[in-house]
Amino acid sequence: MTRTQAHIETRNRSVCPGMERDTAAEAYRRIRHDSELLCEPLQAEDYLLQSMPQTSPPKWHLAHVSWFFETFLLQVYVPDYRPFQPQFRVLFNSYYEQVGPFHPRPQRGMLSRPTLEEIYRYRAWVDEQMAALIQTVAEEYWPEVALRIAIGLNHEQQHQELLLTDIKHNFWVNPLFPAYRSDLPPSTEVSAPLQWHAFEGGLGCIGQRGEAFAYDNEWPRHTVYVQPYQLASRLVNNGEFAAFIAEGGYKRPELWLSDGWATVQQQQWQAPLYWLKQDNDWWHFTLAGLQRFNEHEPVAHISYYEADAYARWAGHRLPTEQEWELAAAGVEVSGNLRDSGRLHPAPAGGEGLQQLFGDLWEWTASPYTPYPGYRAPAGALGEYNGKFMCNQMVLRGGSCATPAEHIRASYRNFFYPNERWQFKGFRLAEDV
Amino acid sequence: MTRTQAHIETRNRSVCPGMERDTAAEAYRRIRHDSELLCEPLQAEDYLLQSMPQTSPPKWHLAHVSWFFETFLLQVYVPDYRPFQPQFRVLFNSYYEQVGPFHPRPQRGMLSRPTLEEIYRYRAWVDEQMAALIQTVAEEYWPEVALRIAIGLNHEQQHQELLLTDIKHNFWVNPLFPAYRSDLPPSTEVSAPLQWHAFEGGLGCIGQRGEAFAYDNEWPRHTVYVQPYQLASRLVNNGEFAAFIAEGGYKRPELWLSDGWATVQQQQWQAPLYWLKQDNDWWHFTLAGLQRFNEHEPVAHISYYEADAYARWAGHRLPTEQEWELAAAGVEVSGNLRDSGRLHPAPAGGEGLQQLFGDLWEWTASPYTPYPGYRAPAGALGEYNGKFMCNQMVLRGGSCATPAEHIRASYRNFFYPNERWQFKGFRLAEDV
Amino acid sequence: MTRTQAHIETRNRSVCPGMERDTAAEAYRRIRHDSELLCEPLQAEDYLLQSMPQTSPPKWHLAHVSWFFETFLLQVYVPDYRPFQPQFRVLFNSYYEQVGPFHPRPQRGMLSRPTLEEIYRYRAWVDEQMAALIQTVAEEYWPEVALRIAIGLNHEQQHQELLLTDIKHNFWVNPLFPAYRSDLPPSTEVSAPLQWHAFEGGLGCIGQRGEAFAYDNEWPRHTVYVQPYQLASRLVNNGEFAAFIAEGGYKRPELWLSDGWATVQQQQWQAPLYWLKQDNDWWHFTLAGLQRFNEHEPVAHISYYEADAYARWAGHRLPTEQEWELAAAGVEVSGNLRDSGRLHPAPAGGEGLQQLFGDLWEWTASPYTPYPGYRAPAGALGEYNGKFMCNQMVLRGGSCATPAEHIRASYRNFFYPNERWQFKGFRLAEDV
Amino acid sequence: MTRTQAHIETRNRSVCPGMERDTAAEAYRRIRHDSELLCEPLQAEDYLLQSMPQTSPPKWHLAHVSWFFETFLLQVYVPDYRPFQPQFRVLFNSYYEQVGPFHPRPQRGMLSRPTLEEIYRYRAWVDEQMAALIQTVAEEYWPEVALRIAIGLNHEQQHQELLLTDIKHNFWVNPLFPAYRSDLPPSTEVSAPLQWHAFEGGLGCIGQRGEAFAYDNEWPRHTVYVQPYQLASRLVNNGEFAAFIAEGGYKRPELWLSDGWATVQQQQWQAPLYWLKQDNDWWHFTLAGLQRFNEHEPVAHISYYEADAYARWAGHRLPTEQEWELAAAGVEVSGNLRDSGRLHPAPAGGEGLQQLFGDLWEWTASPYTPYPGYRAPAGALGEYNGKFMCNQMVLRGGSCATPAEHIRASYRNFFYPNERWQFKGFRLAEDV
Repeated sequence: MTRTQAHIETRNRSVCPGMERDTAAEAYRRIRHDSELLCEPLQAEDYLLQSMPQTSPPKWHLAHVSWFFETFLLQVYVPDYRPFQPQFRVLFNSYYEQVGPFHPRPQRGMLSRPTLEEIYRYRAWVDEQMAALIQTVAEEYWPEVALRIAIGLNHEQQHQELLLTDIKHNFWVNPLFPAYRSDLPPSTEVSAPLQWHAFEGGLGCIGQRGEAFAYDNEWPRHTVYVQPYQLASRLVNNGEFAAFIAEGGYKRPELWLSDGWATVQQQQWQAPLYWLKQDNDWWHFTLAGLQRFNEHEPVAHISYYEADAYARWAGHRLPTEQEWELAAAGVEVSGNLRDSGRLHPAPAGGEGLQQLFGDLWEWTASPYTPYPGYRAPAGALGEYNGKFMCNQMVLRGGSCATPAEHIRASYRNFFYPNERWQFKGFRLAEDV
Repeated sequence: MTRTQAHIETRNRSVCPGMERDTAAEAYRRIRHDSELLCEPLQAEDYLLQSMPQTSPPKWHLAHVSWFFETFLLQVYVPDYRPFQPQFRVLFNSYYEQVGPFHPRPQRGMLSRPTLEEIYRYRAWVDEQMAALIQTVAEEYWPEVALRIAIGLNHEQQHQELLLTDIKHNFWVNPLFPAYRSDLPPSTEVSAPLQWHAFEGGLGCIGQRGEAFAYDNEWPRHTVYVQPYQLASRLVNNGEFAAFIAEGGYKRPELWLSDGWATVQQQQWQAPLYWLKQDNDWWHFTLAGLQRFNEHEPVAHISYYEADAYARWAGHRLPTEQEWELAAAGVEVSGNLRDSGRLHPAPAGGEGLQQLFGDLWEWTASPYTPYPGYRAPAGALGEYNGKFMCNQMVLRGGSCATPAEHIRASYRNFFYPNERWQFKGFRLAEDV
Repeated sequence: MTRTQAHIETRNRSVCPGMERDTAAEAYRRIRHDSELLCEPLQAEDYLLQSMPQTSPPKWHLAHVSWFFETFLLQVYVPDYRPFQPQFRVLFNSYYEQVGPFHPRPQRGMLSRPTLEEIYRYRAWVDEQMAALIQTVAEEYWPEVALRIAIGLNHEQQHQELLLTDIKHNFWVNPLFPAYRSDLPPSTEVSAPLQWHAFEGGLGCIGQRGEAFAYDNEWPRHTVYVQPYQLASRLVNNGEFAAFIAEGGYKRPELWLSDGWATVQQQQWQAPLYWLKQDNDWWHFTLAGLQRFNEHEPVAHISYYEADAYARWAGHRLPTEQEWELAAAGVEVSGNLRDSGRLHPAPAGGEGLQQLFGDLWEWTASPYTPYPGYRAPAGALGEYNGKFMCNQMVLRGGSCATPAEHIRASYRNFFYPNERWQFKGFRLAEDV
Repeated sequence: MTRTQAHIETRNRSVCPGMERDTAAEAYRRIRHDSELLCEPLQAEDYLLQSMPQTSPPKWHLAHVSWFFETFLLQVYVPDYRPFQPQFRVLFNSYYEQVGPFHPRPQRGMLSRPTLEEIYRYRAWVDEQMAALIQTVAEEYWPEVALRIAIGLNHEQQHQELLLTDIKHNFWVNPLFPAYRSDLPPSTEVSAPLQWHAFEGGLGCIGQRGEAFAYDNEWPRHTVYVQPYQLASRLVNNGEFAAFIAEGGYKRPELWLSDGWATVQQQQWQAPLYWLKQDNDWWHFTLAGLQRFNEHEPVAHISYYEADAYARWAGHRLPTEQEWELAAAGVEVSGNLRDSGRLHPAPAGGEGLQQLFGDLWEWTASPYTPYPGYRAPAGALGEYNGKFMCNQMVLRGGSCATPAEHIRASYRNFFYPNERWQFKGFRLAEDV
């Protein structure tokens, strides 16, 4: 770990809607700084690259998160606020229809200007204005300002994770296979044997709990009824997944969902993303470059379809998000999160339910839908989560690229079932 | 209604796994004959037409349903069975990977041969062999043969509905707007005012009940927990939906799911499928040709996205499939089903919860997923339902093109959220 | 050959702009009847099939050629003419922008109505009206009416050739490989050895000559200058082309034009269209169904790219259209044309330059461009040829599907260099 | 003009196959340096941008031209040459199949590494090796080395032009409309009235003449026969083209080639590339940013289809390449070429045939085909020109982005008829 990277560490969970001004100011400085630290290993041209429509150039991430504060705080709470550059309202709007038009997503990599230098000036400008706002906004507005700052900082942390996953993909499409960091040690541990942990089922509650920050999609907390079930003690690992491949996993349609099999055929998938076979050995691409792989690491960068097919092959299934949350609710948030500095999943060790937090986001069998009684917040911020509640699947638990303070048991991430470039894996479940 | 059409009527729910041989033979003859009756209004070239990849030519439907009996019954239970034409195994396989390769779906309309006449010979051959099988199969096999016949006949009834919806679409792409039937009277009724019916919620049970036939996706019956809710007394109608359009419904992104809005933009949707504006009046295309529309008829041929956007605009939501089934479980199966001979949805009349069965399939807010404990049956028949449990939404209740004996409260239909060519509508729900 | 097919025979070249009314009436009846004779072997559903956007359903051909007479003759010269069906103006317009909008070409196979029966009524109506027009149009209009009839009949003959090539492709996409005619005998002849015929070059004239009918693209006759050259005595045959394949012809990019190689890669071409390898033997699909092939027959259904690559491999080149026409100008029009009844190319026999007319259209090295001084005729008829003078290559000499009276030395056919479904082959040339 | 830009000036036409070693060394240093001067106004991220598949990132151009010298000279003539970086053989190969595989063209903008700095090291390495080769290669090899250096330097000059046109397009897709250079003055001149210059036609000769460098596609010089014709004295200008638009030019299919009209519809073209209408005035995008336009400047950035449609609308036609070259053969090579430093076309002044050289490449009516007797050179260098002789049209005369020493009367440029991003315009011609 370099000196600068070391600064990105676990801190107290200070960012919450009820925080004080000083806490907010400190958290703002710290989290905004983290984004820039993450970019330190990059070279100039890396900032422009967009390897596929779903990813964004690092430069765009750096600007968009600033746009978020400008749009949802400065424009709203600073009297007579004049934007840094009026055209940024369009260029760095991601998808907020109620804010106005936005630059087409697949063309984010077409913007060689503004230059990186200008974007850092933009960040500095926003930071200065935000510092002033935090100190000076009228008391009556502080509660809503504090909430929006909490959203903005969590939003920036999400983009920090995306920065890492997008850079990984950007480098993957380059035949030179460049490394983002050359100082990340490969894992050498051995994973614990898989065990099963049983849960009784019945009535339970899931969703946002207490005063800490949570997204609107974790709301409202509500009662659910589940059958008895058990969960695997750890994530499925590379060696296990390689066995699935060796037994024809990608060639047996009966193991796949119909849409999954169509995707396998169309994309000619034969292994997880980032796997390469060289001289009969499996290698994989990591943020440290192309490496031989450790069979004991959890299998990463797979789609929902692959997770589901593996589970069917293995005679098990994926857990629902209800099952996962009920199991995780009492577990301390710790694990191989970004704060560990590994930036890569590691073999499971220890006893009990392992790897619930960190290592890899876990695909659940649950489509991303609103909780009973959910209403999206009014206005453009209501587009943050609500409008995506269709065609995507819920993932739980955070990854090695997620800041520790960002994750919690009720956190719902969501991606389309064919997407693979995030740090995603899975855990098996079964009926009892 | 022509004399021959009149023969397709409601009968007793005779098709069930436990039926006797005579019952099976009679049901087989009757339901197979229904398919041919439905084709009577067609002209020779109509049989080949496939207007889009999702639809199939009438000729293909007639052959595929016969292939189903040949593949899953004759090939299995008739010793030394020799197929009518070996290549039909590929040509008329829809999607059963475990049976073997299949002719690509988008190219079903490319098969001018076998001719319709040959397909009718194929049907006659299969019918003759099936009649013999029913009479002669050993007693020990009868229970599983009876179950497969039940599946095959329900399968044929599904394709009868598809025949009607596919023909409707096939005629719609023709600028001459031909009518499938010229003897269908337009509706003139007025719909009842919308009322709300409240349900207490709590624990309840859904899924297959009793001995009657049900698909594997209705299994297992299981406990669910729902919040208190209420349902609208009838489906949303054309007049109400026209108001949504008039108030800019198709132009306001804040009303739409993200994927829905992308679809609206890409497909340039401005109204439900089959709606046409002429001289400031809305017309729509029906199986009786192009007609002025009755505002009191339920709005038909809409996608999930449109139903969802309307509900958001109206300040309500769609019901979940659990809510729908709990409400419908005690209601008698009757309504404007195919047996009514209208082949078009009609305005709601009467008291209480109306239109639960018939008129239009109702979009629910529930993604199509397996019930807790579900396992797909072994072998190719397990592909019937299970492999589609991703990316689709559940619809309930049957339509004006569904045979009355085919539908029940636990029946789960499913389509992608952007599909519109089926007879689909929706009912509003809300939290209490 | 069936009795009815035998009626399509060589006749005197009677169709010309200066013909008398009786000659026109007789030619009209005869050529119109030929179209219907060609359809006799078809079954009902065959008439609707459109296997790819470039082909048209037989039914559409039958209607479009009638539309041509209705649009360019009846509508113009019959006072108060009322069209048979006003919507046919759009449905059966192929590409005449100045006539008005047209049904999209790729969707011609989507028109199950009007039925074939109605289209035959349309043909009968047009024929009746045309017969009356020929007898009664005022003498002052006769010259232009005669010219347009000549164009219309030549147009119909072009569509007769397309009928055959489109049916061939329609049947090819069917895994059953149906035969259009089962009474066509395979060729058994042996082709003559290839010899070279030298020409001196220098100044010469090409283009329309004399009073006979010619298309506007053959006009004006003009002087050209060519270097000395020689032409092969016959077309390249299947055996020779199979040797090209055997020596890696489809795998060696250095043999191909850049666009050709891109097409080979994208379409995964490994042989000419209609070739199939079964048990290490080449078979090909013909109008008589799938057959073992005769090495001595000229290689058919190849693109310009394949002809060009073969020529480069063989150390030769393709002739220019100037070279071809200067060589063919003095040669009698005879050969394996449609009138021979074979409907398939045959091995070359005899002495001298063989196969100039018939067997296969010959790709030339000449892009299709206007002759010096060319002006397209005014009005919609000017769209017949002129607007296609870009991106296509000239082919010469007619094929086994071309009526003998339709072809001449100055005739310029044209197709895109990647198109293969016509009866196309090639002859080698070289510099002296 | 900045000081550094001023260094790119007209020099003697020193680059030729017969040049001495010292001349070659000097020309090499000078022309290689020009490429780097052209990049001076760029910012770091600009070097990576590829706005569409046809363009290449500046960084890629800088590397590819070096790859050319490495591949066709160093690898061949330096004993035991070890490449700078073996993977560059694939990364910077443009399309030479005989050299081996190449990185896919549309993904050139996906290579953030090697960095620009590394590419400059690559250039320096190649330059050093080339300087040594020029001094030390054995005398017997000098003639072919000199020829290949001449090709390599002309190749680099072609890429210098592409650098400018690609940067222009890269900036155009950015809503900020950045300027490549802010010191380019807009033109204010008035163009001379259009006059016609007649030529007698008859026999003439075109193609490579004398000892100067020429590409293989200008060979062999040969006799042609042309009809009498006349050429317009200057290029069609913006004002004239705006009149075509005002009279519905883009809405009248009868003016267009069929493929042209399809392109207009599909691409929704309503004006030349880089034209924008703001408040009823035409603006256009230039290398100096978005500017109001001067009606007297020649219309630029149009496709062949637009040139052809305008000519038809104006009652004229485009010249063939034979007509153009016969007229230009005796004219001194001078005009608004890159050496003028304007980097934008300027209004025509003076007497006689104007603008033959410089301002804009002129579309001709001639498809790009081999001259009679042409044979592509053996080996990979033979792919330079020969394999593109299909589907493209010839342009003549160079542009404001072409170095003066690079152009000549016999020079044949070629592009697909729908391509517009080069500096392309046209001159009218007509028959006499």
